[in-house]
Amino acid sequence: MRTVDLITRKRDGEELSAEELAYLVEGYTRGEIPDYQMSAFLMATFYSGMSEKEVGVMTELLLNSGERVDFSDIPGLKVDKHSTGGVGDKTSLIAAPIAAAAGVTVPMISGRALGHTGGTLDKLESIPGFRTNLTIDEFKAQVAKLKLAFVGQTPQIAPADGLLYALRDASGTVESIPLIASSIMSKKLAVGLDALILDVKVGTGAFMKKQVDARRLAQLMVAIGRRNGKRVQALITDMNQPLGYAIGNALEIMEVSQTLQNAGPIDLTRLSIEIAARMIHLGKIVPTIEEAREIAQRKLVDGSAYKKLKEVIKAQGGDPTVLDKFELLPNATGARDIVTTRGGYVSAVDAQVIGAASTLIGAGRNTKDDQIDHAVGVILEVKVGQKIDPGTILCRLYYRDEANVEEAADLVEDAFRISASAPEEREIILEVVS
Amino acid sequence: MRTVDLITRKRDGEELSAEELAYLVEGYTRGEIPDYQMSAFLMATFYSGMSEKEVGVMTELLLNSGERVDFSDIPGLKVDKHSTGGVGDKTSLIAAPIAAAAGVTVPMISGRALGHTGGTLDKLESIPGFRTNLTIDEFKAQVAKLKLAFVGQTPQIAPADGLLYALRDASGTVESIPLIASSIMSKKLAVGLDALILDVKVGTGAFMKKQVDARRLAQLMVAIGRRNGKRVQALITDMNQPLGYAIGNALEIMEVSQTLQNAGPIDLTRLSIEIAARMIHLGKIVPTIEEAREIAQRKLVDGSAYKKLKEVIKAQGGDPTVLDKFELLPNATGARDIVTTRGGYVSAVDAQVIGAASTLIGAGRNTKDDQIDHAVGVILEVKVGQKIDPGTILCRLYYRDEANVEEAADLVEDAFRISASAPEEREIILEVVS
Repeated sequence: MRTVDLITRKRDGEELSAEELAYLVEGYTRGEIPDYQMSAFLMATFYSGMSEKEVGVMTELLLNSGERVDFSDIPGLKVDKHSTGGVGDKTSLIAAPIAAAAGVTVPMISGRALGHTGGTLDKLESIPGFRTNLTIDEFKAQVAKLKLAFVGQTPQIAPADGLLYALRDASGTVESIPLIASSIMSKKLAVGLDALILDVKVGTGAFMKKQVDARRLAQLMVAIGRRNGKRVQALITDMNQPLGYAIGNALEIMEVSQTLQNAGPIDLTRLSIEIAARMIHLGKIVPTIEEAREIAQRKLVDGSAYKKLKEVIKAQGGDPTVLDKFELLPNATGARDIVTTRGGYVSAVDAQVIGAASTLIGAGRNTKDDQIDHAVGVILEVKVGQKIDPGTILCRLYYRDEANVEEAADLVEDAFRISASAPEEREIILEVVS
Repeated sequence: MRTVDLITRKRDGEELSAEELAYLVEGYTRGEIPDYQMSAFLMATFYSGMSEKEVGVMTELLLNSGERVDFSDIPGLKVDKHSTGGVGDKTSLIAAPIAAAAGVTVPMISGRALGHTGGTLDKLESIPGFRTNLTIDEFKAQVAKLKLAFVGQTPQIAPADGLLYALRDASGTVESIPLIASSIMSKKLAVGLDALILDVKVGTGAFMKKQVDARRLAQLMVAIGRRNGKRVQALITDMNQPLGYAIGNALEIMEVSQTLQNAGPIDLTRLSIEIAARMIHLGKIVPTIEEAREIAQRKLVDGSAYKKLKEVIKAQGGDPTVLDKFELLPNATGARDIVTTRGGYVSAVDAQVIGAASTLIGAGRNTKDDQIDHAVGVILEVKVGQKIDPGTILCRLYYRDEANVEEAADLVEDAFRISASAPEEREIILEVVS
């Protein structure tokens, strides 16, 4: 078997066998296949795609490159949720406490901010003292006790995926549907989940710009789950404007707190409850999704999810009182209002631009080694559909360093589209794939 | 400028600016852009292609990475020919002596065998003593004196192309039309030619399998020539069977000798004369192509081209008597007849398979570091269109090492297609692009 022949066959649209994919992935992981051949293979895959069978094999190869976390000694079904990445997406921090409060076991492995999208770990780390680097034993102990813990990916889980992801990031091959699907699913399968809710974002602020691509990604991941005996459901959700009002790490923790006290934005609340309900349903706490929705609603309204998140924060070394006293969170020192000169209806808020502006003032990172400023970010003052007069504040930039504020302000100004007539109403949940 | 952004833009089908291509090629040549990013860019280019403008820029960047050979002190127009590579293609060794005998100055820079295709340098090196590694000064002196010299590419000419070619070879991106065009033309422009005849092969034994691709490649190279003030004409020629009867280095030298003595195969003779005629015409020896054809024919028939090749062999350290006494060439020790069990008409001889079998028994190389056995190869005993009876010998394998003979014999047996009715006659020259 010659690597260049396999690259050429994938380039020409052929399906590779399990042995051939193993030769590539294992050879690359062992350092026998050089980066420059693997990146050419990844680019060929970007164009030629992969069959459902190939994606399944790829997922197994990534999974088998590392260890699996064994949760079998913890009773109950283990359910996680995963988002493909959006702007202002803090649903994990709301849905997971709701599901755990309802009795679902949620061993949550989260990611970090990259590009214009945020990451759950960075948001949590804006809470003074919060530890995301639990050991596997600490993680398991906390899940057993509280039914919920948040950790980052360990180097022992799917290391081949880590290698491939870094190469994709440098070679312009991140946005490949089969590569995204196998990357996500290999990590989720490694933690011994019984079920998984996927939130596949589509729109300007997401990796997937088109609903047809989001659907394909969702279908592939659901199929991988089925192949591995796991129940997987995917929601395809709108990312044509940021979710909620807050973008930026500490700012989003504040919005999480408000939402868990039943005073959050409608879109964020609606999506978080639906995700939590599906986790509760797949976790077999109740037999129907309708009952699960009722429970999710109740766990939010009665404050038990809020209490659950406080317990988790405390268990992971953080100060739970930050959820009540926002002044204990890192705070920005400067604010800049972005004001409209036109009146009309807000017809679009480009989530990618808002995310990029937020990254520019320090809330995100362009490369993995960039430092994050947890205090800074953007608060929207208007959302799509809202009627506004000239002089209305569209959003506020919260910053600590003046450096890129001008540039960020110019960016966000262009993110808002104002039109004369009211835009059509959009659903936040566009489609369910299961 | 970020490399990954340029890769992504090429991936998405955008045209890159001259500055952006310079950033990539110069950065790569200086070692600042890693192989794995360049190979991803090459694969993206394989799919997305390049505009005529981009190919022109690419050619200049490769050209400017090295030195130019200055032939301005040698009087007369300098004309070369180049083939995109075929099986049994020894036209350079016939057309160049004809053109030189007719008074054209031919500074010929040739390549080596790779994959299933042969290389002029390897064929010449089957002549004992023949030196292909002339210095630039020796090369120029011989061209001034004899009007013809054969050398290999020096490391000073278009070194960026050498780097890129090695990467393409390993990353499955050889067959990219814009990359082939810029690679060929950068080397040809570096030697200060006034005109160039391109022989673009199309068919089973060529890189280009489809005539539409061959035409696109021809058009691109003619356009690059025009942009640089050089007259370039391209012949698109058939490579659905090997050219002539002989495949293998010393075997091909023997067929060259026969052809220059006017006793060669019809297809090879016809193509060599047409190429020589176009070199004579573009070299402005005569004003019309018809007159040039007459001269080419005459220089072959009267033996002056044959004499010219002998002078060149002698000047480059070889023994010219090999052209008369074939026993002085390296000779195979074993021969294996491939016999047909069916009668009918030969309707196809898969040139790629014949080339691969020939490489298998040692006539070519799979990697640049493989050793070549100059003695071995394949002699066809039949060509397309010929009527044959059961028991007819289709071809003979000439070998020195038994190792791969079985496998090669199995291969070549499948290369011959025998049909009940006579196939349509095919032209060797399919199209002229100028």
